[in-house]
Amino acid sequence: IRTKLPKVGTTIFTVMSQLAAEHGAVNLGQGFPDFDVPQRLVDALATAMRAGHNQYAPMTGIPALRQAIAEKTERVYGHLPDADAEITVTSGATEALFNAIHAVVRAGEEVIVLDPAYDSYEPAIELAGAVAVHVPLDPATFAPDWQRVRDAVTSKTRMLIVNSPHNPSGAMFGAGDMQAIAELLRDTGIYLLSDEVYEHIVFDGARHESALRWPELRERSFVVSSFGKTYHCTGWKLGYCIAPPALSAEFRKVHQYNVFCTFAPAQHAFAEMLREEPEHYEQLGAFYQAKRDAFAAQLASTRLRCLPVPGGYFQLVDYSAVSDLDDAEFCRWLTIEKGVAAIPLSPFYAAPPAGQRLARLCFAKNDATLDAAIQRLRKL
Amino acid sequence: IRTKLPKVGTTIFTVMSQLAAEHGAVNLGQGFPDFDVPQRLVDALATAMRAGHNQYAPMTGIPALRQAIAEKTERVYGHLPDADAEITVTSGATEALFNAIHAVVRAGEEVIVLDPAYDSYEPAIELAGAVAVHVPLDPATFAPDWQRVRDAVTSKTRMLIVNSPHNPSGAMFGAGDMQAIAELLRDTGIYLLSDEVYEHIVFDGARHESALRWPELRERSFVVSSFGKTYHCTGWKLGYCIAPPALSAEFRKVHQYNVFCTFAPAQHAFAEMLREEPEHYEQLGAFYQAKRDAFAAQLASTRLRCLPVPGGYFQLVDYSAVSDLDDAEFCRWLTIEKGVAAIPLSPFYAAPPAGQRLARLCFAKNDATLDAAIQRLRKL
Ligand SMILES: CSCCC(=O)C(=O)O
Ligand SMILES: CSCCC(=O)C(=O)O
Repeated sequence: IRTKLPKVGTTIFTVMSQLAAEHGAVNLGQGFPDFDVPQRLVDALATAMRAGHNQYAPMTGIPALRQAIAEKTERVYGHLPDADAEITVTSGATEALFNAIHAVVRAGEEVIVLDPAYDSYEPAIELAGAVAVHVPLDPATFAPDWQRVRDAVTSKTRMLIVNSPHNPSGAMFGAGDMQAIAELLRDTGIYLLSDEVYEHIVFDGARHESALRWPELRERSFVVSSFGKTYHCTGWKLGYCIAPPALSAEFRKVHQYNVFCTFAPAQHAFAEMLREEPEHYEQLGAFYQAKRDAFAAQLASTRLRCLPVPGGYFQLVDYSAVSDLDDAEFCRWLTIEKGVAAIPLSPFYAAPPAGQRLARLCFAKNDATLDAAIQRLRKL
Repeated sequence: IRTKLPKVGTTIFTVMSQLAAEHGAVNLGQGFPDFDVPQRLVDALATAMRAGHNQYAPMTGIPALRQAIAEKTERVYGHLPDADAEITVTSGATEALFNAIHAVVRAGEEVIVLDPAYDSYEPAIELAGAVAVHVPLDPATFAPDWQRVRDAVTSKTRMLIVNSPHNPSGAMFGAGDMQAIAELLRDTGIYLLSDEVYEHIVFDGARHESALRWPELRERSFVVSSFGKTYHCTGWKLGYCIAPPALSAEFRKVHQYNVFCTFAPAQHAFAEMLREEPEHYEQLGAFYQAKRDAFAAQLASTRLRCLPVPGGYFQLVDYSAVSDLDDAEFCRWLTIEKGVAAIPLSPFYAAPPAGQRLARLCFAKNDATLDAAIQRLRKL
């Protein structure tokens, strides 16, 4: 078989989770919490099943959930999307990213991605017959250089993909970045795909610059988010896309024939949770900030050096005082020999920066898990 | 926006379900049961959530579920697929169909579909940049004419999509059909995509000719099924694809970057159900045969004429004694004026046969629902 995706192998997240399991390592690799989903969601989902919500949901998502997402969006970002025409519920953010790309990007066109980038963007672009054009973020600060992005635009550019708070670095866009994007896209036919799955995990009083806050951006944007990160249930696979009516119409054509609709009982559960307990997402930043701070304080007693974490639930560490291995080798060694699984950064790049000695540690973990990891990391 | 899918509108299933709701019609349109999922599944899903199975499942599906699917396949079709290399759990059969097409069909290639065909095949083919080549089934019996299929093969043909038991007609392939397909595909590079979601809903002692029974076919086939039809939970969106290792590898590259994995707690529930209660799928044919027979007996007292239903949960009726409207108009009229929602056949065709006067009624319904429909249909 001549493969359509020659570059695709097993994703690094699966590789490292399997390696962690094989070697009994503390798994700070693949990004998922080891604490549980709020009890209220479990109860609400069970109630929805027992109430018989077990047949096809509407293709776009149940109205109560779309309405709750619209209201949350207004409450947090000061903009009320149209629940009927602009919101579509998906099988996680991954499906939403895939659909947005397939909805508007054609064979032969180009999509700009900022490296390091989440690993699903490029294969989705390639399956659409398009080409990913990689523009590096600053290798030390992970800040975008918008002039470089502008230089990468050609007559074939159809989409720009951004991600703030950023995986793997935790870097966040400021208002200046949003203005730069708006200028860059003005009077072009380029759409913005804004991956905002860590929208509620932001620290130190910073404001998440959702594309939805910016009128000039949201009229050309697919804004993607997910309940997995916000509600500690990465295995529930529920996300959504907010886009203007014309873009949502194209998005839904793909969604309709890709998965049609999503698991119905969970939609009822999230509709209740969003409406009844806004404190949950409002307090999520503080919840994770405490973890970030405690973890960084403990890491100070190791030979790993912490990079700043403005948002998200990943701590980047510089391991150059410990090892000269490249990051892929270092993370394997750390997992197998030292019992802590981490994610290397090189798989997030088309061309990894030479000599970068960074690894990603997920701190969405119970204190006991983080303590166990620190015990082991102190021995480096 | 220049759409990539100019032919796609709102699916007929959504249109008719909405129309049914608006007009208080008995909904025999969109195919879903109005009775509930087995209690055991609800309990097992709740138990899995409470046991903490709420983070990412493995990309291919949890091992226990893949193993249970493998064992069921051996039990029913006498062939044991490799649970690790050949089975992938998906967000319903729809995602599996989409992935299989995107895994191996390239821009400019051709895919043969037999009309009438389920409405997701062609948009998925078009999104892959390929062309759907439509070969009609016999308009009266819905039997395939394999010589016509052979005539449609060109050097660009990459895939043949088949569906038995067939939606919308209920027609089923016999051993002769499977042999004809095997001959047709022998020494070609054409893959078979076999949509078998109604595999357990077969009547009158007939045997479902899964492509998995036929060694020459299964080595080039993606066999797709779903739990939605078998377990009365179309809203749970869990399905799977069985394909040889090399095809599964390509399939998984798409799945990995399309949805990554599926709702974890349901996977645990179906693993238990498949293993512990094989009676459920073994008795499903008898369960639905009783409904089919009772419904057909009642329809005999109307002016609608029943076509034979070898499998599936749809009854086709010829309404030519009642109306001269085309099928789309007839089904709207039946819903709005007569209070029974049905699905027209024309949306399943690239070129509907002239003068066909058939409508599809779903009999996956409680007796009370079917009785209410019959009361109304008697007035035609
Ligand atoms: C879909 S597995 C990857 C999880 C994740 O978002 C990450 O670890 O970066
Ligand atoms: C995904 S809605 C369509 C349901 C169905 O399979 C049918 O009614 O044919």
